[in-house]
Amino acid sequence: MAEVLFGVDLGGTTVKLGLFDRDGNVLDKWEIPTRKEENGRQILPDIAQTIKDKMNEKGYSDQDVMGVGIGVPGPVDNAGTIYKAANLGWGVMNINEELGALTGLTVKAGNDANVAALGEMWKGGGRGYCNMVAVTLGTGVGGGIIVDGRLLAGATGAGGEIGHIHVDDEEQDACGCGNHGCLEQYASATGIVRLAKRALQQSGQDSVLRNGEISAKTVFDAVKAGDALAMEIAEKFGEYLGKGLAAVAAVVNPEIFVIGGGVSKAGPVLLDYIEKYYKPYVFHGSRDAKFALATLGNDAGIYGAARLVLD
Amino acid sequence: MAEVLFGVDLGGTTVKLGLFDRDGNVLDKWEIPTRKEENGRQILPDIAQTIKDKMNEKGYSDQDVMGVGIGVPGPVDNAGTIYKAANLGWGVMNINEELGALTGLTVKAGNDANVAALGEMWKGGGRGYCNMVAVTLGTGVGGGIIVDGRLLAGATGAGGEIGHIHVDDEEQDACGCGNHGCLEQYASATGIVRLAKRALQQSGQDSVLRNGEISAKTVFDAVKAGDALAMEIAEKFGEYLGKGLAAVAAVVNPEIFVIGGGVSKAGPVLLDYIEKYYKPYVFHGSRDAKFALATLGNDAGIYGAARLVLD
Repeated sequence: MAEVLFGVDLGGTTVKLGLFDRDGNVLDKWEIPTRKEENGRQILPDIAQTIKDKMNEKGYSDQDVMGVGIGVPGPVDNAGTIYKAANLGWGVMNINEELGALTGLTVKAGNDANVAALGEMWKGGGRGYCNMVAVTLGTGVGGGIIVDGRLLAGATGAGGEIGHIHVDDEEQDACGCGNHGCLEQYASATGIVRLAKRALQQSGQDSVLRNGEISAKTVFDAVKAGDALAMEIAEKFGEYLGKGLAAVAAVVNPEIFVIGGGVSKAGPVLLDYIEKYYKPYVFHGSRDAKFALATLGNDAGIYGAARLVLD
Repeated sequence: MAEVLFGVDLGGTTVKLGLFDRDGNVLDKWEIPTRKEENGRQILPDIAQTIKDKMNEKGYSDQDVMGVGIGVPGPVDNAGTIYKAANLGWGVMNINEELGALTGLTVKAGNDANVAALGEMWKGGGRGYCNMVAVTLGTGVGGGIIVDGRLLAGATGAGGEIGHIHVDDEEQDACGCGNHGCLEQYASATGIVRLAKRALQQSGQDSVLRNGEISAKTVFDAVKAGDALAMEIAEKFGEYLGKGLAAVAAVVNPEIFVIGGGVSKAGPVLLDYIEKYYKPYVFHGSRDAKFALATLGNDAGIYGAARLVLD
């Protein structure tokens, strides 16, 4: 019986790979560089090669491998078609078929943020739940929606793009997507810096944030140190994100929100600010949704990719 | 081979029933009253009896019937547990089991708004699509989310409660749910009347709406007649609903929105106002979602209930 799974997390710089048993235990973990030259045409062959090499090293035949799951940075539909991965130079292609032909194995592809969500459900902060929303607070705000244990990809792979929920009618600056007032403009790492700079400009208040570089980390460090202005910034962050997640809950009614990404390193205090504003905005049927921190960090992608194969 | 299906739409006043073949053709259609006395304890036995009577009339044995689908007015999870139906006097119970025991048939229950959505996907305005959001603009604003052909019930049956997405920070009046600024306060039939009354009060402008009763129908009739104030009201309606549906799209990325309920009788002009505001607020991955009117009217519930059995 086939007994192992490969999980691949394809990033703009490195490809992370993991070898798992079906219970989700990591048997091996390694990385290769992402070769983006020539519109990324070497990427899938490189991945196929490193998988073949690992199989040889371990003495696995094709029959020992249940399949390869892969998370890619772009919108992917349920059939494994990626519509665009600007980061990699890729246009439209079907990854399940392409990588399947190169490896001779069953391949299942998904969007990287969605796949990381699946990883957190399987072995991370959302363990034990099957209706979950993963929220990644990094450079942007990403989302991964899991309904009855399965990823919601959306019609064109744009499901879970919760960073682009409109939350502010007054915003003058454009979001990266071209719209104005997207959640991502306030709740991402860069969004928190924007909120902080605005607050520092508009207020005469003293603050440790007036000295040195401002980042999501320095803001939440200042919050923990009791800095009043930093706490005001955190309130704004919490209000935008709480309101946005209340909208998400009105649509999918999850059991739990799992908060990850670089910003989540701030720890539990982050959840307090989010929940404070989630509760008054959310429909009562979703008021008891739980909030937890992601626990797998950079490994969420390889876990979730491997889990894709089990679907 | 089992060849027919029953679809039941349980409302506060009447129970609508339909007998279908597996292709969704209606073989028969009838109603019985909803007996709400004694906390609605007669309702399920009445439904079981009328189904048995119909089977006798048609000469069907249990083997001829694939099952009974039923839409009920309250949150229902995937296992058929209804958490509350205030309208009917019901508390928590498992409808699949209760009605299954009474009929000896396989029973599948769902929330009525969600079930109607399934009907519109099967045989109505969303025919041919499998990622769809049904929007019911009636006394309230209901939603039914269909992902890959299946209803999204949510963790506690509160999936698709899109009428309670927060869309206005300035609202002073409370929504029926207790929150402030819910989509339902502007885009339901009663919401449109509120918008109209506000506009009439705040503006000195002449309008046919100043004579006679104000309803969603008279507002959109006035829009079609070119009444300037009515058109301003329709713009507000469109902005709230377009913005709210853009948030829904950021979460589930549907192929199509199907707009139903009493307000949708206004016809295609309604879609124009919604799409006008949907486009600028939505994430580009969902910008091409289609908008269509529901076509099954009051029969959507029985169609969708029957379709539940086929899942």
